Amino acid sequence: MTTKKIMKIPKQAKKVFDGVIFDTYQWEQEMFDGTTETFERIHRAPSVECIAIVDDKIITLEQKQPTREDWYPSLPGGRIDEGEEPVKAVARELLEETGYTAKSFELYREYSGTSKIHFPEYIFIAKNCKKVSEQNIDSGEKINVKLSTFDEFVNMFRNKLCATSIYFKFEIYEALLDEKKKEELKEKLFKK
Amino acid sequence: MTTKKIMKIPKQAKKVFDGVIFDTYQWEQEMFDGTTETFERIHRAPSVECIAIVDDKIITLEQKQPTREDWYPSLPGGRIDEGEEPVKAVARELLEETGYTAKSFELYREYSGTSKIHFPEYIFIAKNCKKVSEQNIDSGEKINVKLSTFDEFVNMFRNKLCATSIYFKFEIYEALLDEKKKEELKEKLFKK
Repeated sequence: MTTKKIMKIPKQAKKVFDGVIFDTYQWEQEMFDGTTETFERIHRAPSVECIAIVDDKIITLEQKQPTREDWYPSLPGGRIDEGEEPVKAVARELLEETGYTAKSFELYREYSGTSKIHFPEYIFIAKNCKKVSEQNIDSGEKINVKLSTFDEFVNMFRNKLCATSIYFKFEIYEALLDEKKKEELKEKLFKK
Repeated sequence: MTTKKIMKIPKQAKKVFDGVIFDTYQWEQEMFDGTTETFERIHRAPSVECIAIVDDKIITLEQKQPTREDWYPSLPGGRIDEGEEPVKAVARELLEETGYTAKSFELYREYSGTSKIHFPEYIFIAKNCKKVSEQNIDSGEKINVKLSTFDEFVNMFRNKLCATSIYFKFEIYEALLDEKKKEELKEKLFKK
């Protein structure tokens, strides 16, 4: 992706604050005229999401969190634990949030955030999902699991409250503007 | 906006790091089961953008910054200085980046960021703009000024590198999906 190379936190940057979700980095940046300025970037803890396929449907969630007043739609997913592989994290989050497991996980997209906020995000396609247990969510979440059609799925991203990668949201909008891209996405998701 | 009420940094939050662009806040959040966890939010320095109207055209920029390899499109705008009024900031940025002044500035949108990153953003419509001076930009910017048609303007936001408010980008995508919304936006911008 063109966007990746411009998003990195430079090697000479120093971590000036170590947070729960956000770490702050600063460095002295040489400007076009040879002067220097203190530049700052944030590293946000990486996250995963998945498009989980159950026959001809896709798993979508309605979530509520302690700090948000409204229920909001999302895909299954969450923060990656320290040192955890993205694919392990996505399988864990899918099982915890929905009780489903997948026959396979295919990495579909990998993003790295904006120019000022470095934020690794991974989107997987979870193929051939089956329900194997009950939901097992933590104290900070309330989650309803739904099985949506492809059209319900793409339209979910138009909801202002939808919590997902902004880059994936832009991809969905581009598919909504172009029937061919939309069909390609549908085929990709439901291909056996 | 529905989104505003859920985005705030709570009163009991403490500033744990004071950065150049990003300040970090933390607080103990009561969860649904009565336990508590440390929650963290970022406050990002507020910014302004403007849709600057010159007869039947709109000012758009092609920018280059020291940390980004590619030229990228944007609207005129930038960071609001400490204690500066948003409308003063937008007039200042428009003049510095383009050499244009406006007869009037109308606040068009006000956003407050995501659930985890509090980020005030103001979008103004700058009516009846005239060129009064040369560009006067700082050491960290290279900027080409263009006069775009309305269609070039809306399509600029589909460019992956376009640097603008994500919320405004979503609004433009919604307008691209709905001819009526697109016409309303056009009318709003070019109304005398």
